[in-house]
Amino acid sequence: MEPVNIKKIAQILNLSISAVSKALRDSHDIGKETKDKVIALAKELNYQPNPYASSLRKHKSKTIAVIIPEIANNYFTLAINGIESIAQEKNYHVLIYLTHEDVNKEIALTKYLHGGRVDGVLISVSSTTTDYTHLHHLEENGLPIVFFDRVCEEIDTAKVTTDDYESSYKATCHLIDCGCRRIALLSVSNSLSISSKRAEGFRQAMADNKVKTNLSDIILCSNDERKNYTLIKKLLSRKQKPDGIIATVEKFTTNIYLVCQLLKINIPGDRKVVCFSNLPTAAILNPPLTTITQPAFEMGKAAATILFKALEKRNFSINKESIVIPSMLVVRKSTMQKE
Amino acid sequence: MEPVNIKKIAQILNLSISAVSKALRDSHDIGKETKDKVIALAKELNYQPNPYASSLRKHKSKTIAVIIPEIANNYFTLAINGIESIAQEKNYHVLIYLTHEDVNKEIALTKYLHGGRVDGVLISVSSTTTDYTHLHHLEENGLPIVFFDRVCEEIDTAKVTTDDYESSYKATCHLIDCGCRRIALLSVSNSLSISSKRAEGFRQAMADNKVKTNLSDIILCSNDERKNYTLIKKLLSRKQKPDGIIATVEKFTTNIYLVCQLLKINIPGDRKVVCFSNLPTAAILNPPLTTITQPAFEMGKAAATILFKALEKRNFSINKESIVIPSMLVVRKSTMQKE
Repeated sequence: MEPVNIKKIAQILNLSISAVSKALRDSHDIGKETKDKVIALAKELNYQPNPYASSLRKHKSKTIAVIIPEIANNYFTLAINGIESIAQEKNYHVLIYLTHEDVNKEIALTKYLHGGRVDGVLISVSSTTTDYTHLHHLEENGLPIVFFDRVCEEIDTAKVTTDDYESSYKATCHLIDCGCRRIALLSVSNSLSISSKRAEGFRQAMADNKVKTNLSDIILCSNDERKNYTLIKKLLSRKQKPDGIIATVEKFTTNIYLVCQLLKINIPGDRKVVCFSNLPTAAILNPPLTTITQPAFEMGKAAATILFKALEKRNFSINKESIVIPSMLVVRKSTMQKE
Repeated sequence: MEPVNIKKIAQILNLSISAVSKALRDSHDIGKETKDKVIALAKELNYQPNPYASSLRKHKSKTIAVIIPEIANNYFTLAINGIESIAQEKNYHVLIYLTHEDVNKEIALTKYLHGGRVDGVLISVSSTTTDYTHLHHLEENGLPIVFFDRVCEEIDTAKVTTDDYESSYKATCHLIDCGCRRIALLSVSNSLSISSKRAEGFRQAMADNKVKTNLSDIILCSNDERKNYTLIKKLLSRKQKPDGIIATVEKFTTNIYLVCQLLKINIPGDRKVVCFSNLPTAAILNPPLTTITQPAFEMGKAAATILFKALEKRNFSINKESIVIPSMLVVRKSTMQKE
């Protein structure tokens, strides 16, 4: 079946195309009787206005884009739910785009968003993004951008983050309090804002507590889970094993636990573990996992709220809207001092 | 900064708008020198063609929509990764839309997709969808649809499913083999195709093994996790407690384990548990969880492959392309006969 358009309605009712178009827009030029006839037929034929034509006219797509590095991650799925909770209120559509941690994909996506496809963008940058030209272009084209979680400092717009430095500092102090002296921080990137802050918090806590660190205490992992399994196995097999592990990425959890099972390492007896994580199963792991729980839903909600303010208010200074929502250290058995 | 459009390029170069447009489309009407000038300036100003205008012309959005009920669910995040793996090859964009298990949201989204915004749709229907008029309309408007996981039988198009009946049958037989005689199946819907099939497989396995069932063995849960916690607590506190539980939805896992912790019920000693689940932490739970693992990534990949065949081939019979990819019973400690 052919899509029903204005032309078809005009033919059936023996009206001009312009008259049908005006009737559908409830114009004063058209009499009530004609309007009723047009609307009744449009309904009967399930006529839908062409969204592209309508966007060209109004310059409003009623759509926002969310660009995230990956989807199989509880932080991002919760953040999306937070974003959607606001977008639904505003009657906006949310398009979710994945970069798979690939800067080239990120560049291609941002190009695709130029020119009216969406009204605004929420983005958490990929771990391979080091040059931000493509994001500058988005901004220069007048699209409001709000960064969340993984931000780009050099672009002067709103940023919604959590207290990565403080959380990492707190987690490190917690492990030191529990008796750990050789702590390894598993990181995922040297360039991401959140990774640097978590590394800084870790180093500062070690220094403040006069615990010796050397560079090898920060271990750079990859996005490949098999490689990470091998790397963690090597780390936990070496002579000077760490007695505490801070994983800065949720998905390291399963590998850490599986390697400990394999090597018959007791958590928390031999090694204590804390993860930056929004795992819904943290409390039912063996043992229950101490987490830095990020306010993912709230961060998504806050980022979307700022974006809608920028869309609704004239003369709104989006660059003055950055906020930091604290994470929470939830202590469970994986870092307890005694079984 | 104003977005750069063809008009602006025409003004700067003192050409007609039509000449610039033709130059950008590499038309024979325009000389090489002019073309080179236009292209150089367009590049310099980071000109991006308006996607809506271009879609109106070509009737190809190079975009597919994925409609799913929820995002905080490992089945769907893995399925999306499978879909993306194919879309990337084809150089297509993937838009992800969430219905939050709300049929009204699903209806609104499908209306939004009429008229050229996307070239095709992959959908897993919401648990509250019982009338399919909105999906019939999509089909009548010429948009190819492929269902995955949660399908609508009455629409004659491709469906990618897993063997829900057989998996449920197998899980039930496994619990019976492990000594269970009072098995509860936790379901989420009375209308969803997958729920009915899982219920049928369960009943048939009970009948074939001559284990008495009554209706109360199938427990209808909701989408509200707090209500489900209360419901599971009530179920595991009653006099005639089940000795085996089959959860048909992944997110029931945490509640079942937490209630058992609270009531000091030993898994698998007192109760055996199996879940339809793609939890990456299944192997590190306390105890490790026996799962029906769905081929989520493969199902997403298969659904996208069929959709692209429909987009690329003329005279392709999409309704003859339904496939079933089997799930796998992975036995872990939560259903072991002895500790």
